[in-house]
Amino acid sequence: MKININKGVTAPKGFKAAGIHCGIKKSSLKKDLAIIYSDVTATACGVYTKNKVKGAPLLITKEHLNNKCAQAIIINSGNANTCTGDDGLEKAKKMASLCGKALNIKADDVLVASTGVIGVPLNIDAIKDGIPIAIAQLNSYGGHSAAEAIITTDTATKEISIEFQINGTPVVIGAMAKGSGMIHPNMATMLSFITTDLNIDAKLLKEALKSSVDISYNRVSVDGDSSTNDMVVILANGLANNDNINEKDHNYYTFLEALNTLNIHLAKEIAKDGEGATKLIECNVSGCKNEKSAEILAKSVINSSLVKTAIFGSDANWGRVLCALGYANTEFNPNLVTVEFACETDSILVCANGCYVEFDEGKAKEILLKDDVKININLHSGKASATAWGCDLTYDYVKINGDYRS
Amino acid sequence: MKININKGVTAPKGFKAAGIHCGIKKSSLKKDLAIIYSDVTATACGVYTKNKVKGAPLLITKEHLNNKCAQAIIINSGNANTCTGDDGLEKAKKMASLCGKALNIKADDVLVASTGVIGVPLNIDAIKDGIPIAIAQLNSYGGHSAAEAIITTDTATKEISIEFQINGTPVVIGAMAKGSGMIHPNMATMLSFITTDLNIDAKLLKEALKSSVDISYNRVSVDGDSSTNDMVVILANGLANNDNINEKDHNYYTFLEALNTLNIHLAKEIAKDGEGATKLIECNVSGCKNEKSAEILAKSVINSSLVKTAIFGSDANWGRVLCALGYANTEFNPNLVTVEFACETDSILVCANGCYVEFDEGKAKEILLKDDVKININLHSGKASATAWGCDLTYDYVKINGDYRS
Repeated sequence: MKININKGVTAPKGFKAAGIHCGIKKSSLKKDLAIIYSDVTATACGVYTKNKVKGAPLLITKEHLNNKCAQAIIINSGNANTCTGDDGLEKAKKMASLCGKALNIKADDVLVASTGVIGVPLNIDAIKDGIPIAIAQLNSYGGHSAAEAIITTDTATKEISIEFQINGTPVVIGAMAKGSGMIHPNMATMLSFITTDLNIDAKLLKEALKSSVDISYNRVSVDGDSSTNDMVVILANGLANNDNINEKDHNYYTFLEALNTLNIHLAKEIAKDGEGATKLIECNVSGCKNEKSAEILAKSVINSSLVKTAIFGSDANWGRVLCALGYANTEFNPNLVTVEFACETDSILVCANGCYVEFDEGKAKEILLKDDVKININLHSGKASATAWGCDLTYDYVKINGDYRS
Repeated sequence: MKININKGVTAPKGFKAAGIHCGIKKSSLKKDLAIIYSDVTATACGVYTKNKVKGAPLLITKEHLNNKCAQAIIINSGNANTCTGDDGLEKAKKMASLCGKALNIKADDVLVASTGVIGVPLNIDAIKDGIPIAIAQLNSYGGHSAAEAIITTDTATKEISIEFQINGTPVVIGAMAKGSGMIHPNMATMLSFITTDLNIDAKLLKEALKSSVDISYNRVSVDGDSSTNDMVVILANGLANNDNINEKDHNYYTFLEALNTLNIHLAKEIAKDGEGATKLIECNVSGCKNEKSAEILAKSVINSSLVKTAIFGSDANWGRVLCALGYANTEFNPNLVTVEFACETDSILVCANGCYVEFDEGKAKEILLKDDVKININLHSGKASATAWGCDLTYDYVKINGDYRS
């Protein structure tokens, strides 16, 4: 498995992409329109937000994926096209049909995504004018440019590609994502577009995507808000010419492992780049009766504003970790819990049997001053475990979100 | 019904209180030990946090209330005596027994409460030395002094008393509370002590307290974290000599109305005084199929970090309100929703049928610049409604919580 974090959606065979500024964002320096295109029709599927308020683009994408294939994706940033009524639905459809027409493919082979402010009419004219410009720029090195065009308050693009082999045949998966703010378990304000030249059955592709999303993007939280628009879609165009994967054999699991690595990498990048974040927080809960319970506990810790601010301040306030475990909606015995804070190179035990232990505050501070902080919790009640990722809560989070629209 | 916000727990007949500095908090200027005492044994009951990690004092109080009566309450601030193992339980018991001995009453007629940092051994010697000093200062004007001794990061004491009549006999309820940080639906990091000279049956007292807590403290959120220690207790000593309330007649409802007014007042004070808060946010959800659903939706809006920061920035970003409704765990039709922002004197419609409407941004800003902001939501799907309270999320919240322990 070869990982490359400098190439994204155009790494697999037969994919082209481009990103341009079309005029949705105010600053002409900021790209706001991306197109991904596959040379041939691809097997495709998606996973969507569970928010009951759903963006118009998401509804259209879902409809267009009924036939389980797609050949292009058009994405704008700067406007979510959500809470925009029938007008919004019309415009999301229009994005697909204009893009399909210009690419000479069917409108329902085009998927649509939007991200940005909610409840503002979408400037469809800017998109209309932008489409031919973006299409003219489509090329097999355009992944980075597309990745730039989908970000909002993100401070960096998020891309990765992985090469692996299926019975000796090289296969590549690539992806780009955007996150920042509102990122929450259950697929929230986050877009991830995955491309691969793998040859795989549609049903298995969907199954792999779903299970991979569950242990990656769905275990990330920035501020506990889950969003209206977000989705992960995957296009598999088969151009690697590997033996078709149509059962859950070792080839399927080889693919799944690569897909998990790819999605967990992006999920961590998203967590780390949460609005105003200075640190990535990883919470590992082990010794649990079952994985679901471990997941609920890990997410509860990651979501706690009090834990997040303590980590921002590099304060070993482990009582807040216990508190966050305690209000999570799952049963456990508080009197068996151990907690340690850790970084890449060191760790320190701060709580055993649900009670304080003597520890070196100086060493704890040193660990918590790192950019990458782990909270390791053991319930000593079973063998299941789960990991969740988040970020600290900082002054800048408040600053960024206090006046987002202007 | 006469409301007095300058008198608290010593307003009803036969109650004395005192608050002193005994040495748990570092600064000798800050009080940290309070005692409330009733001249006679009172009918008593409590409601407790649902956090699975429970503070030692709470376990002792629960035990001491098995006989449904109490005569004194001892409370320390500066240390929660939680996650302190058997040592913590011993010390909580000790607080009750030392206080009982000094007051010449049974230890199990003394209730215990603690608030402050979690997971640090309690300085029981300081409390031991403080008890006789506090008892010597017990007096029927000592309510305010006690209210000062229970606060932590609160910026103000929270007291209220209400006078009403039962069949022509004057009755008084008084209370003091502390909040700030970690305040969340379901009785979190919050202490409220209610005293009354009402003569009432124990079972009805408990029922009234529970129903009142459900629509007051349990509808408040500061940061979504629910705490380990918190409780509301009420002592009714009967010294008003009213006709005993032993059924749900109009006298019971007269009392309940006064109790609700008292608790809602304190709940709003707690929300307004959330750590770093500059504004009280009230979210009213109406037009709902049932009250439970209205409550879930109102709390979801109040808990959203993105809504909180938008209100801090006086930014009419109503899309975040829709988003928070959408991820709440209850069904509704997003296409029927109206949202307005309001203050005491004005209001502005910002969303109808789940979609944007034209509105005057200047006027919206003016409303949102007020200290007391309302978010009024109508689902147009029924007749039930609910209100929840919270506060904005500010730079100072992050500052206060980034290094709480030092």
